[in-house]
Amino acid sequence: MKQLLLIGIGPGDPRQVTYEAVEAMQRATVFFVLDKGATRDELVQLRKAILARYLPEGGYRLVQVDDPRRDADAQDYAGAVHAWHQQRAALYAHLIEDELGAGDIGAFLLWGEPGLYDSTLRILDLVRARGVALVLTVIPGISSVQALAARHQVPLNRIGEPLTLLPGRRLVEQGRVDNLVVMLDGQCAFAALDDPGLYIYWGAYLGTADEVLIAGPLQAVKARILEVREQVRRRKGWIMDTYLLRREG
Amino acid sequence: MKQLLLIGIGPGDPRQVTYEAVEAMQRATVFFVLDKGATRDELVQLRKAILARYLPEGGYRLVQVDDPRRDADAQDYAGAVHAWHQQRAALYAHLIEDELGAGDIGAFLLWGEPGLYDSTLRILDLVRARGVALVLTVIPGISSVQALAARHQVPLNRIGEPLTLLPGRRLVEQGRVDNLVVMLDGQCAFAALDDPGLYIYWGAYLGTADEVLIAGPLQAVKARILEVREQVRRRKGWIMDTYLLRREG
Ligand SMILES: C[S@@+](CC[C@H](N)C(=O)[O-])C[C@H]1O[C@@H](n2cnc3c(N)ncnc32)[C@H](O)[C@@H]1O
Ligand SMILES: C[S@@+](CC[C@H](N)C(=O)[O-])C[C@H]1O[C@@H](n2cnc3c(N)ncnc32)[C@H](O)[C@@H]1O
Repeated sequence: MKQLLLIGIGPGDPRQVTYEAVEAMQRATVFFVLDKGATRDELVQLRKAILARYLPEGGYRLVQVDDPRRDADAQDYAGAVHAWHQQRAALYAHLIEDELGAGDIGAFLLWGEPGLYDSTLRILDLVRARGVALVLTVIPGISSVQALAARHQVPLNRIGEPLTLLPGRRLVEQGRVDNLVVMLDGQCAFAALDDPGLYIYWGAYLGTADEVLIAGPLQAVKARILEVREQVRRRKGWIMDTYLLRREG
Repeated sequence: MKQLLLIGIGPGDPRQVTYEAVEAMQRATVFFVLDKGATRDELVQLRKAILARYLPEGGYRLVQVDDPRRDADAQDYAGAVHAWHQQRAALYAHLIEDELGAGDIGAFLLWGEPGLYDSTLRILDLVRARGVALVLTVIPGISSVQALAARHQVPLNRIGEPLTLLPGRRLVEQGRVDNLVVMLDGQCAFAALDDPGLYIYWGAYLGTADEVLIAGPLQAVKARILEVREQVRRRKGWIMDTYLLRREG
């Protein structure tokens, strides 16, 4: 049985880590850090900064590996994701078998909240299906959605009303747009909405030194968000942003 | 200008508090603890336990007040909530004016995540509308939804799909039930669903010593959840539970 900790580390601010997460880091002996190529170096650095801050004496091993990339041009989105997950499962199974000896406890430091648009739990299901016996512990973390709401000082839901979180690709299918949090939106799906009643609360690099926040009536601030987003994305080479859309007034 | 910190403290486990939250507690000089009657004494105790753990030297003032109760029998739900919020705004305005002197920093310890089905931010908007100038800081906390997902080791969303959070009262209106997290459901709305394809991941008193978890095909475990829920609710006199509904297979 291999022991694994899936630790949510929040959206970037090392202070937005829980005591439970730090206790888990203290128990771990091996940290798996999976990098998605050069543009994501900074996310690996942020993880290392968290480890340096909370485990100043060291005493752990860091296993850094290139995560396979997903075929972004594939026609069949679900199929491409599925194939990518199988590739990652093979890699993870291999890593877990090779790197975790008797008495070792492995850990993944997961961005934000482990249960929100993160595939690690699913990949580990596939690892189990390959015959690797795992004992898991999952530790929640502050999601980027919560950081967004806190920085804008806005409730996520309206009293008694539903709240929906969704990836940018699914925004077009929404009938009436209201109380929506959009993540994973490289295409700026908000730009296509022309409803005059909508407000947007947008944030990029939340919790990090590069944090940017813009809020206002969607039609009034749309162009500014697109412009600022493109500027910061170019400067850093990558971007992580999320936003809340709500009907106000 | 009155300074106020809205601090998310997680769903009950004192270890599920962030370092940022504890830093905020250390800055606060006055904590407002609003109790909703005898059944909720335990929630006040849990808050006091968190303060005792993280501020062992004391050095703060605790202001404990009875929160007005909402008229639960009112026909007009939105109207009753509105009236209740105005009552609370009057009380909070009063407390803030009276209890916070120059140099004081007030704090509310909010259950779970401050942005999720919590009315404090909205009440403070009403306090501002009454002419009290406030400087706010909001600090995210682990929500009960995240604790639920972590304890069941289940992702909140399915790959690429939306996730909706909603109060129990709104479950009946949902067309196709899938990827839903239900909160605030005193009526056990899940019991009325007869769809054979649904799974439920249910949890009560998450993060506390009384935590109970049940998961499985909804039709198979429904009766057991109702039974266990009624048992623990009677024993403790109150209950907090939440669940995820998802189509599996
Ligand atoms: C693969 S998902 C992971 C989400 C993560 N598990 C969480 O709880 O925030 C990545 C998406 O999360 C959002 N995101 C993550 N971190 C962010 C940050 N620091 N600022 C803004 N958005 C962020 C972006 O929408 C990004 O496309
Ligand atoms: C007024 S809402 C507050 C939610 C809170 N802000 C959060 O983030 O969890 C109260 C509802 O949250 C859920 N809840 C809060 N704490 C819980 C816990 N420890 N275990 C299970 N459910 C909880 C229940 O559905 C409850 O009816």
